[in-house]
Amino acid sequence: MPEQSQILRAEYLHFQALPTRWMDNDIYGHINNALYYAFFDTAINEYLIAHGRLNIASGAVVAFAAESHCQYLRPLAFPEVIDVGLRIGTLGNSSVRYELAIFKQGENFAAANGYFVHVFVDRETQKPVPIPAEIRTALERLLSQKPE
Amino acid sequence: MPEQSQILRAEYLHFQALPTRWMDNDIYGHINNALYYAFFDTAINEYLIAHGRLNIASGAVVAFAAESHCQYLRPLAFPEVIDVGLRIGTLGNSSVRYELAIFKQGENFAAANGYFVHVFVDRETQKPVPIPAEIRTALERLLSQKPE
Amino acid sequence: MPEQSQILRAEYLHFQALPTRWMDNDIYGHINNALYYAFFDTAINEYLIAHGRLNIASGAVVAFAAESHCQYLRPLAFPEVIDVGLRIGTLGNSSVRYELAIFKQGENFAAANGYFVHVFVDRETQKPVPIPAEIRTALERLLSQKPE
Amino acid sequence: MPEQSQILRAEYLHFQALPTRWMDNDIYGHINNALYYAFFDTAINEYLIAHGRLNIASGAVVAFAAESHCQYLRPLAFPEVIDVGLRIGTLGNSSVRYELAIFKQGENFAAANGYFVHVFVDRETQKPVPIPAEIRTALERLLSQKPE
Repeated sequence: MPEQSQILRAEYLHFQALPTRWMDNDIYGHINNALYYAFFDTAINEYLIAHGRLNIASGAVVAFAAESHCQYLRPLAFPEVIDVGLRIGTLGNSSVRYELAIFKQGENFAAANGYFVHVFVDRETQKPVPIPAEIRTALERLLSQKPE
Repeated sequence: MPEQSQILRAEYLHFQALPTRWMDNDIYGHINNALYYAFFDTAINEYLIAHGRLNIASGAVVAFAAESHCQYLRPLAFPEVIDVGLRIGTLGNSSVRYELAIFKQGENFAAANGYFVHVFVDRETQKPVPIPAEIRTALERLLSQKPE
Repeated sequence: MPEQSQILRAEYLHFQALPTRWMDNDIYGHINNALYYAFFDTAINEYLIAHGRLNIASGAVVAFAAESHCQYLRPLAFPEVIDVGLRIGTLGNSSVRYELAIFKQGENFAAANGYFVHVFVDRETQKPVPIPAEIRTALERLLSQKPE
Repeated sequence: MPEQSQILRAEYLHFQALPTRWMDNDIYGHINNALYYAFFDTAINEYLIAHGRLNIASGAVVAFAAESHCQYLRPLAFPEVIDVGLRIGTLGNSSVRYELAIFKQGENFAAANGYFVHVFVDRETQKPVPIPAEIRTALERLLSQKPE
């Protein structure tokens, strides 16, 4: 494991609570590493749907994963409940870089942290398009440093 | 789909709320059928751990799946939150048959119902053993018909 | 576990080899019970796509899960490769009941067996429709007892 | 999506073929981003077990994920079969950085590439330990640049 993380809840602007599932535990008794990304994209899409009115079933614009990264700092295990912390690192014309961390409920130091890049594309052509206005407004609220 | 289900919340004795995840949706935009069983075994193990003190990491007794069944009545989709309803159908010496249903939060009719059979075995020998007393007491509280 | 299964490879008509994955193992070191259904629907959909030309991305007809069942006979574990055996039990106008078993590669007795019911529906209305002719022909080839 | 990747099969030293599964597809009809890491850790653990005799069930040393990263270059979809390409970037005393890419079968350019860091720890104390000799030998065979 990397040396002690000092990543704190106060560094994130939005939180999503997620219970773990029985099948999330691997043979070593910890949440499988790939599932941290399932927590990331669940928290992100929940936010886009609830606050930016992203329509995942039939909207004209969809968000594709372009890049992701995670650093695992402390193990997690079912039946723990986690909180996914979210903020926006950089907000481009058609892409956004989310910065995320995962906290065991009741703990102040992150168990993992990472980032995730979405590119917004036209559902039909799958070519990049500008981020829709309502989504952009929602994302701006989570910018870690407000644009000047 | 089978004809309209009339399975109601009132028929279950314990409930576990679980948010769905982005990756649970399949290409048709619905929660994948296999994941209903992940909801089942999550609700069951949460209950066994919280109320029967099952120690999944190192306890002498573990519970193996022996049989499972699900009937899909109405589709579910991320980002819906579900409630898993649980009761005990039959409680044997070393096995238990759980009866379960899945409800979309806020709805009274089940979206799915099914059952799940656990056999309790010795962690080392993997041979059936009597259900530990504390777990049995917890399971008896959920018997759909109290033993006479 | 139920008493010794005598379910044999020779009882199935089509086979799909599938490697297990690291994350399939649960904390007890066995393939998680829910994933048997992921093996079932993967083998089924592979067959429908390859032999019945089911178009999962944009075809007019899609197949919804209506019911599923599995009996777990012998544990499986990553990194084992499994073979999913498939045959058709009953073939209705708009629904089909698949009968399946899972074999550890190189073994003749099933590790699990079960069934899975698909209802074919119109992609837009989600109402049942007759099984498309090309899919029906493919399914008839796997009928465990040929219709007279 | 990032600009055209020129990552080629020839850059990797070991390959693991993996079929995709029905449930891997997300609502947009592509393999879910988190599952690329399931492909990564499956290929890695297959290699460690087959070539380094890692004993995941009871060995004294286990490998924990410390960090992972993926860049998504071209979409993948069930029922495609993928090849995971593997090589070793850096090999430390108790940690190893794997470099990986995912290729659609029959294609020469990667659909995704990334890395994954394992730290080998004692199963009981969970403290880092030197990589066992047999595993180290297996890993050295995949070093992208042979140590001098």
